[in-house]
Amino acid sequence: MKAVQYLDVESVRVGEVPDPELLTADDVLVRVTASAICGSDLHLYRGHIPGMSPGSIMGHEYVGTVAAVGDRVRQFQVGDRVVGTFHVACGACAQCRLGQYHQCAGGGVLGYGLAFGDYPGTQAEMVRVPYGDVNLRKIPDGLADEKAIFCGDILTTAYGAVRNSGLQPGERCAVIGAGPVGLMAVMAARVMGAAEVYSIDRDPERAEATAAFGAIPIASSRTNPVRRIMQATDGLGADVVIEAVGGPQTLALAFQLVRGGGRIAAVGVTAETEWSYPLMTALTRDITFRVGLANIHRDIDATMKLVQAGRLDPSSVISHRLPLEGAPEGYRLFHEQRATKVLLTI
Amino acid sequence: MKAVQYLDVESVRVGEVPDPELLTADDVLVRVTASAICGSDLHLYRGHIPGMSPGSIMGHEYVGTVAAVGDRVRQFQVGDRVVGTFHVACGACAQCRLGQYHQCAGGGVLGYGLAFGDYPGTQAEMVRVPYGDVNLRKIPDGLADEKAIFCGDILTTAYGAVRNSGLQPGERCAVIGAGPVGLMAVMAARVMGAAEVYSIDRDPERAEATAAFGAIPIASSRTNPVRRIMQATDGLGADVVIEAVGGPQTLALAFQLVRGGGRIAAVGVTAETEWSYPLMTALTRDITFRVGLANIHRDIDATMKLVQAGRLDPSSVISHRLPLEGAPEGYRLFHEQRATKVLLTI
Amino acid sequence: MKAVQYLDVESVRVGEVPDPELLTADDVLVRVTASAICGSDLHLYRGHIPGMSPGSIMGHEYVGTVAAVGDRVRQFQVGDRVVGTFHVACGACAQCRLGQYHQCAGGGVLGYGLAFGDYPGTQAEMVRVPYGDVNLRKIPDGLADEKAIFCGDILTTAYGAVRNSGLQPGERCAVIGAGPVGLMAVMAARVMGAAEVYSIDRDPERAEATAAFGAIPIASSRTNPVRRIMQATDGLGADVVIEAVGGPQTLALAFQLVRGGGRIAAVGVTAETEWSYPLMTALTRDITFRVGLANIHRDIDATMKLVQAGRLDPSSVISHRLPLEGAPEGYRLFHEQRATKVLLTI
Amino acid sequence: MKAVQYLDVESVRVGEVPDPELLTADDVLVRVTASAICGSDLHLYRGHIPGMSPGSIMGHEYVGTVAAVGDRVRQFQVGDRVVGTFHVACGACAQCRLGQYHQCAGGGVLGYGLAFGDYPGTQAEMVRVPYGDVNLRKIPDGLADEKAIFCGDILTTAYGAVRNSGLQPGERCAVIGAGPVGLMAVMAARVMGAAEVYSIDRDPERAEATAAFGAIPIASSRTNPVRRIMQATDGLGADVVIEAVGGPQTLALAFQLVRGGGRIAAVGVTAETEWSYPLMTALTRDITFRVGLANIHRDIDATMKLVQAGRLDPSSVISHRLPLEGAPEGYRLFHEQRATKVLLTI
Repeated sequence: MKAVQYLDVESVRVGEVPDPELLTADDVLVRVTASAICGSDLHLYRGHIPGMSPGSIMGHEYVGTVAAVGDRVRQFQVGDRVVGTFHVACGACAQCRLGQYHQCAGGGVLGYGLAFGDYPGTQAEMVRVPYGDVNLRKIPDGLADEKAIFCGDILTTAYGAVRNSGLQPGERCAVIGAGPVGLMAVMAARVMGAAEVYSIDRDPERAEATAAFGAIPIASSRTNPVRRIMQATDGLGADVVIEAVGGPQTLALAFQLVRGGGRIAAVGVTAETEWSYPLMTALTRDITFRVGLANIHRDIDATMKLVQAGRLDPSSVISHRLPLEGAPEGYRLFHEQRATKVLLTI
Repeated sequence: MKAVQYLDVESVRVGEVPDPELLTADDVLVRVTASAICGSDLHLYRGHIPGMSPGSIMGHEYVGTVAAVGDRVRQFQVGDRVVGTFHVACGACAQCRLGQYHQCAGGGVLGYGLAFGDYPGTQAEMVRVPYGDVNLRKIPDGLADEKAIFCGDILTTAYGAVRNSGLQPGERCAVIGAGPVGLMAVMAARVMGAAEVYSIDRDPERAEATAAFGAIPIASSRTNPVRRIMQATDGLGADVVIEAVGGPQTLALAFQLVRGGGRIAAVGVTAETEWSYPLMTALTRDITFRVGLANIHRDIDATMKLVQAGRLDPSSVISHRLPLEGAPEGYRLFHEQRATKVLLTI
Repeated sequence: MKAVQYLDVESVRVGEVPDPELLTADDVLVRVTASAICGSDLHLYRGHIPGMSPGSIMGHEYVGTVAAVGDRVRQFQVGDRVVGTFHVACGACAQCRLGQYHQCAGGGVLGYGLAFGDYPGTQAEMVRVPYGDVNLRKIPDGLADEKAIFCGDILTTAYGAVRNSGLQPGERCAVIGAGPVGLMAVMAARVMGAAEVYSIDRDPERAEATAAFGAIPIASSRTNPVRRIMQATDGLGADVVIEAVGGPQTLALAFQLVRGGGRIAAVGVTAETEWSYPLMTALTRDITFRVGLANIHRDIDATMKLVQAGRLDPSSVISHRLPLEGAPEGYRLFHEQRATKVLLTI
Repeated sequence: MKAVQYLDVESVRVGEVPDPELLTADDVLVRVTASAICGSDLHLYRGHIPGMSPGSIMGHEYVGTVAAVGDRVRQFQVGDRVVGTFHVACGACAQCRLGQYHQCAGGGVLGYGLAFGDYPGTQAEMVRVPYGDVNLRKIPDGLADEKAIFCGDILTTAYGAVRNSGLQPGERCAVIGAGPVGLMAVMAARVMGAAEVYSIDRDPERAEATAAFGAIPIASSRTNPVRRIMQATDGLGADVVIEAVGGPQTLALAFQLVRGGGRIAAVGVTAETEWSYPLMTALTRDITFRVGLANIHRDIDATMKLVQAGRLDPSSVISHRLPLEGAPEGYRLFHEQRATKVLLTI
């Protein structure tokens, strides 16, 4: 089959590889119909995360149809339309039993290299999904692939971060970063009842674009976001801040934007191992700070329902649709920030 | 001053009464600028609730400006624009300390007769508000009286019922009754993230009108609501049902609409003392049933913020605006179901 | 194998029946080491619940060791010590996916007759457990069978009711009924932080016995429980009431004991289909009422940990230990209220 | 009157100062009957926190009787036995209205110097309490001063931290530090249903002493706490960690002890402004980290009830009872770690 293969830093190709096979009785083979390029794929592309060998198949955002099921699979049949979770879990370990699928002892991320389970990725004509009953969901009739695909990763990541923040209806939320995850966080905060959502991005054009999603845009290259939000909140600060960039500056900004007693949820992926935490400020101001990869399994059923009902519309972030063969171009466009979101259709 | 006085069953008048005075150091006098007629005022008007003497001043939904404050009042000054809570609480008893202001030992309802504290009502040029610090809220600049007034009663009543139901984002909610409280419940369920809100009313016109608020209308005189909701939920039922009518039939309907493990919150006021509860059904299906008057104080700050941010727009339910002198006509129109909501402006 | 068979009203016998076999790939066969007689088994014994044919095997509280597993079973191996949940669920339907295992579309109760799935019971040398991965839990080393067995039914039932009531640390809880489930509710309310737990039973001896579990006993045949609790709570009432008897009088008592704004969780099984609900009282006092069979799967991992840590000790309720052959005597003793809890060891 | 005055680093005296007077209509004067020396008083004593002038009155943990009330005070009368909150709040600002009394715009800490509102302290014969209705609680009859006093500070601080951690019944909790706050956290975690509480302290004697409070002691000078807790939790880690020391090492330890997806609540006061946060670890492990001063007002009613019911017994931490004149000795003993907790009785 054809698949997008990692070759080297800033170099991917579409090559011919052997078809995957069922390896365990819990496996499901999925014929991929679409796979998106995720912001975290760029970390691999840019060589920031080790563990990809030349030839490894990339990708972890996907939808498709079931092509084969192992003997222990109960919930899926050949032909089912499915969306997969970007991280895979066993469903049976102590963490999975607590509902902490993203902390599964034997879990990993599809197409993300050795440190994440060494699973072949989804930017391919076919993918083997371990523990299919756990890591797949049926797509309801009438729900388009282009919408469902986001439930398996960035929409649910953003939604989960807003949920982790404990946002209450009527509260004010600031979202740092207007990339795909930031946009999804704006949508999620709206649907969970935020009175106001402020979207902060350096790029005025990106910032302005969030108004269409119900946000109050703040272009931080032109407007001081701290002053702006303090004015809007009578000097109190945002009840909740979602950090969707990753990196020391935006984390520090989050602590400046949040009100005393407020909550920060960070989903931006970063390569920094340590960060200078404002301990005294946080101590006197009682700040809750949560940073973590998403638990897709916990929230995907809710996001699927909200997308199906039209209350969340994630497909609007897609800027480019390319065939699988266009993957090298798609990666390049995304890398050069000339694409918001690239969907590879297969 | 002028005030709307109860005379007898289906008879009110606008009469001249003495101005109220500060009776305790905690009192605030409010010059009323608008007072609405509540569905529960009709219970008095129709003689269903005893305790109103001829001459008693009616009304409990109001906004105005502070005219005088008692010596112990800390939070208000003459001239402040304010909205009041329909029920009044002392703020200091054991229930108030638990945040259960609607269960205040010494509380009551303005303009609702002997059994509710014998307080003069708000459909008047001036009203004395006991424990002003507890029972008033400042109206933010830019928030119109016509919107703020609903935060003191029916909007927050409906919002509180949805909150009491524990509605989670992505859930499906059915609202029984498309009167003012039902409409507010539709709005509240939407803002709290319901994937779908079904609005059920016998009257096709009233039902259809809820579509403008984001509901899926079901005219129960034409469509069996149980069958309709079971179809829409794969036979599961609604996660949450809000009963906003009051009465045995609609309560029984709520139990038919709700899924096993679901929750019913009833806010419809009824004069029935007992009701035949479907015990065996509830036992095997694990139903949570909550019925109760609202705790406005708990939720009014959230609803004020949501209205101010434009996420809730309660003023759209107003069908008639009349001067205080028009109160007898307003009561008649509402009683005859020819008005949805009557606002008396003063 | 030997098994306890229902014959007729107030008549059971230990007879010889064919060994069970694996019927589906999800089944697990468990060699039973102990099975208890549940209060709800008495409903069958007394003929209050239809659906048991002569010869049906009784029982649903059990522990044992795994004797065989179907091909799709992932989590168990032959020889594992296990405790089973009294109700069985498929783990895959819409309700199970919501975590509502007690509302499983294809679920039932072991040994409880036609209306509950027609599953053979557990008072036997061997039992077939459908969907073994879903309906069994491994017993940790060092945790005695006599303790673990209660996690599969009455301890977790009581624990779940207290959790459903939303009991907060520092609150006051009243438990109606000092039978096995009532005693477990006392323990559960203590472990969840109740400041005070009042245990109410007509029988002074049963009531007094609850003091050993940390309760404040009220023998309702001698002391008016409403007056007693009102005195103890400055006229407020209990924050939470757990009704563990079943029947109109004790349900009505619950509404008298609870404070305004309080919560009632009823787990007592009753054969009444309807009940005269105090609607007006509940409306003005804002009462939350939940009645339902337990969701064992939701809470069993927590109760297992608490029992293992010694914070809950359910085995203290056992009054009689009998061999399987003693089942007829055990049923008789329990029926005549001469036993608190009978354990059949096999 | 007599009062404990700060003179210089490691130097306090009992001097004669003018009696306090009512300055505002919201003030209450309290005749102090006992005031404890808090661990945070040692920060002042050691000169780690600036803002105390020579002669400033120290102390913020106290009980007493009401001696005078301002005109706006509603809830207290002369003669009432009261306990005060260590931090004072206005009760009316935006943060107070959110229930965030510890974030009050105009708040502070009694006896803690210029940066905390410059309020005279409570280690004196009399203290002026601003906003008395907000910052005092009546002590129920039968509740000893020596127990009630801890509800105004360290017991409720520890209790609040456990509550902030979201501890669920059945979870495993590690408490770092076995000083007074750590001991209170052990008690609080027990009362909220922790299956197991591990108490970690370098000092073997202090560690062992926690067993009497229900903890599993770990003397970290002898036993590696990470290895010990990983063994006890099958390699998973503690669900919740309470850090009750303050400082980089113990914060780092918390991140090593907590399971993936777990929560850390830090209450140890530290003078560090920044701390090297393990960002990558937290990102992949999804850790929630909350550090902050306590919100006493939120939880004091619950802790009072639990102490009154005998479920929490904080007075057991008192090692020394001295008259007010003994304050210099008390500070010295506490400073030299020869006292666990010093109570000054007046």
